[in-house]
Amino acid sequence: MLKDSKMSRRLIAPIVCLVMLLSFTAGSAMNSKSSLGMNFAEAGTLSNIQVEGKTPKYIFMFIGDGMAAVQVNSAQIYKGNNNHNQIALQEVNFQDFEAVGYQTTHDATSFAPDSASTATSLSSGFKTWSGTIGLRPVGGISANKVENVDINKVPKTIAERLKDEKGMKIGIISTVTINHATPAAYYAHIPSRNDYYDIAMQMADSNFDYFGGGTISQPTGKNKDQRDAYEVLEEKGYKIARTKEEILGLNSSSGKVYAVTPVTQDGGAMPYAIDSKEGDLALADFVKKGIDVLDNEKGFFMMAESGKIDWAGHANDAKANIGDVLAFADAVQVAIDFAKEHPEETLIIVTGDHETGGMTIGQATTGYDTAVNILENQKISYIEFDKIIDGMKDKKPNLTFEEVLPVITENFGLKDEYVDGEGDQPYMALELSNSEVKRLKTAFSETMAKERTKNEETALLYGGYNPLSVTLTHILNNKAGIGWTSYAHTGVPVPVYATGVQAKLFNGAYDNTEVYHKLVAATKLQ
Amino acid sequence: MLKDSKMSRRLIAPIVCLVMLLSFTAGSAMNSKSSLGMNFAEAGTLSNIQVEGKTPKYIFMFIGDGMAAVQVNSAQIYKGNNNHNQIALQEVNFQDFEAVGYQTTHDATSFAPDSASTATSLSSGFKTWSGTIGLRPVGGISANKVENVDINKVPKTIAERLKDEKGMKIGIISTVTINHATPAAYYAHIPSRNDYYDIAMQMADSNFDYFGGGTISQPTGKNKDQRDAYEVLEEKGYKIARTKEEILGLNSSSGKVYAVTPVTQDGGAMPYAIDSKEGDLALADFVKKGIDVLDNEKGFFMMAESGKIDWAGHANDAKANIGDVLAFADAVQVAIDFAKEHPEETLIIVTGDHETGGMTIGQATTGYDTAVNILENQKISYIEFDKIIDGMKDKKPNLTFEEVLPVITENFGLKDEYVDGEGDQPYMALELSNSEVKRLKTAFSETMAKERTKNEETALLYGGYNPLSVTLTHILNNKAGIGWTSYAHTGVPVPVYATGVQAKLFNGAYDNTEVYHKLVAATKLQ
Repeated sequence: MLKDSKMSRRLIAPIVCLVMLLSFTAGSAMNSKSSLGMNFAEAGTLSNIQVEGKTPKYIFMFIGDGMAAVQVNSAQIYKGNNNHNQIALQEVNFQDFEAVGYQTTHDATSFAPDSASTATSLSSGFKTWSGTIGLRPVGGISANKVENVDINKVPKTIAERLKDEKGMKIGIISTVTINHATPAAYYAHIPSRNDYYDIAMQMADSNFDYFGGGTISQPTGKNKDQRDAYEVLEEKGYKIARTKEEILGLNSSSGKVYAVTPVTQDGGAMPYAIDSKEGDLALADFVKKGIDVLDNEKGFFMMAESGKIDWAGHANDAKANIGDVLAFADAVQVAIDFAKEHPEETLIIVTGDHETGGMTIGQATTGYDTAVNILENQKISYIEFDKIIDGMKDKKPNLTFEEVLPVITENFGLKDEYVDGEGDQPYMALELSNSEVKRLKTAFSETMAKERTKNEETALLYGGYNPLSVTLTHILNNKAGIGWTSYAHTGVPVPVYATGVQAKLFNGAYDNTEVYHKLVAATKLQ
Repeated sequence: MLKDSKMSRRLIAPIVCLVMLLSFTAGSAMNSKSSLGMNFAEAGTLSNIQVEGKTPKYIFMFIGDGMAAVQVNSAQIYKGNNNHNQIALQEVNFQDFEAVGYQTTHDATSFAPDSASTATSLSSGFKTWSGTIGLRPVGGISANKVENVDINKVPKTIAERLKDEKGMKIGIISTVTINHATPAAYYAHIPSRNDYYDIAMQMADSNFDYFGGGTISQPTGKNKDQRDAYEVLEEKGYKIARTKEEILGLNSSSGKVYAVTPVTQDGGAMPYAIDSKEGDLALADFVKKGIDVLDNEKGFFMMAESGKIDWAGHANDAKANIGDVLAFADAVQVAIDFAKEHPEETLIIVTGDHETGGMTIGQATTGYDTAVNILENQKISYIEFDKIIDGMKDKKPNLTFEEVLPVITENFGLKDEYVDGEGDQPYMALELSNSEVKRLKTAFSETMAKERTKNEETALLYGGYNPLSVTLTHILNNKAGIGWTSYAHTGVPVPVYATGVQAKLFNGAYDNTEVYHKLVAATKLQ
């Protein structure tokens, strides 16, 4: 695959002069220390792991975006026994895998990295700028501009290598849009993750065998003036399946396919598990269908991302977060079941790209107590609640807090009344304290205001979210004993779980770039 | 060792009737499901791991109290390159160990557990109540009273078993008081961790070979009316070394010894690393001396706890926290150096008992940026700063904020002025914003008040800490890009690092109780 020549049409021209200036100094130095003063030791790390034994024929790579140990643990706790003095976790399937490692997630820009760079580290084995996909960074301090990447030497991703060098079929699945950062990091090479249309064009050129899940973001470009990306995909030989019936009808003789979720939410992504209706296709269904489509003699590599674990983390919505972790585990179960039928041929890896939200089990007001099960009272995600409030506002612009309160109680369980004996501890009951009501009223005013207040306090209280819904999830989460520190990603190392052929390679503590090198070693690509 | 008979003098009498009532139903059911309705599946787990190969002659068990992945990562970041676009971690020695696992840390009472129960899980392989040391819980829901423990059948800790069954010498070290929960979990069996005097008596009866680090808490009992515990220790044959000279003079022919830190802070503990003076004995020195004292033909088991990582976490003081993680790594280095001399005979395990504080790298106001290196501006721990303020208050009861400000600037770097160009981002500079000054003034008033305001807001803002110092660490930590959610422990799983003989047993994800069972397997005790 001549990525260089394909890229040149869209990307190379505007930045070629800059790169020519830099290439003499940066070109060959990327494997150790850059002569520009950057420490690229990790960027150039090659494990040189020699392995014995079989290589896996079937590889599943599951990425929970924004999923670190605490998100997995929260799901275990939510499904476990939360009764005081009867504490027990419910196991999550991949927690039992025989190999566990953990990876550090910083990127070339920051210790609180982004999905483009971290997914690139996982897919391609090097560090890059926050926001960059599949291209190496060049330049020293203050160089973090997406233009400062090496487009002379486009590295291949693990998926591209397994296709080109082993003839394996490739599947890429995401619950968010299919040209979003994480899926893109397996097939695209582009300075900025925000160039969705260009990423979609690279998707069409990838020649990968199966795409599944979310829709294409900006299919006709930022200005809606480009040729429809779905048409381009069809022109490149992709069959696009858009209904449940069409999707379920796909099989190994369908050719190159893109199975697009018939139900969308939040800009073309699949709905949160908590908001899904009976019969909606879930991530597990797209994985199952992927197996049907990709099944062939030379084997396959399938990357399946649960992208909305991250989005729920950004919004500090623990219930939506946990719901998608559990749906993610359902998808992993499909691979586990497949591995039972192909025990000597399958490798399953489950990991995250970084943590999102700074989630913790335990927080200041509840101290040593938790009541994670009270999240059961939340019926819909923050995003669906926002829609309800927006609908009420449209109908009645001078909506009052008292009119909204029953809707709050219905969807979050929280009530402005005292119910005797409810909950072990008063602060863990669904009754709102006076100060909580005050917080909600302030947030409601902010939500109803024509213009939002922008200062340090509102940045801390609401981030970029609807003030009412984020205050509701904060209050309910805090009563459950769950805390959050951020609306962005955080830097905590992330666990890696692996089972099957060559799984033991994934034991240990290592950098996220090593995940790629371990896969190279496991498949003996070197 | 007949712990039962020793215990009976102090503990059994008041609760024997209750236990007799319960013993028929609870006694034999502890290995599966209790007939009282509690799920003790984990409490009774036996790994039944059969191992091949050598058993370790020298075992080091390092426990960073309150240390999860994020605390280790914070130290790596602090020592790494924090310059924007030059991001690099500095490795911490135990991060490189060949085996890494993850342990879940909930106890029988809560998902946000305590050190008594979690250290009991590590030392003895079962879950117990928050607050209980070395005894199994009995009773069902609402039974979490320290009386509800099984004192008929006192389980042996790994240290007691290795001494009794293998003749190994035992060393117990802590940077906090030596009868605090974590060290006690290796030699004591008591319903409540708060009975410090009784724990000290069990320490004297332990016949363990080396105690080192912090002093004894409440050496003459809660009411200061008991026989001095140090005297009891001497009577039981312990040599007590109290000066640096005496401690450094100890060796393998010193007999049973207790090396007590000559310098104390915060109720008889060793000082924070950040507050230590040149020449003060550090945790590493007590480990080094432990090797000298314990060296013998049958080998040794040494547990060394860094207890103030936890205390700094409770206080949300990242600088003190990181300082003690680094001092902990220095102590681990002593074991690593020893292992180099005894490569076929040594096992080193490094872990935490639970996370403390809900620490995160990244928080709401700094988003994707961090500047952990600005913690360099903090010169002393919160506890030493409190002493300075207390001293100023004593001299001048009507102290003003303006008088305190220079002391703040001196010790935390924070200043009420704008310095052009300082820091990458204004919010990461040491300049205090208007709202930060307001927060500090409110906290200062609270610190100066005769009686503290007690409500939901102050509980959240200050916990039980000095309002001024905790606001200062919050502000400095936030500018560094570090967030906290709690003044208590949290529930995130904690990494386990192992190297040496049988280290690979510690790979995987498992419950904290398994750490004991893995040690049993590694030493072939069964």
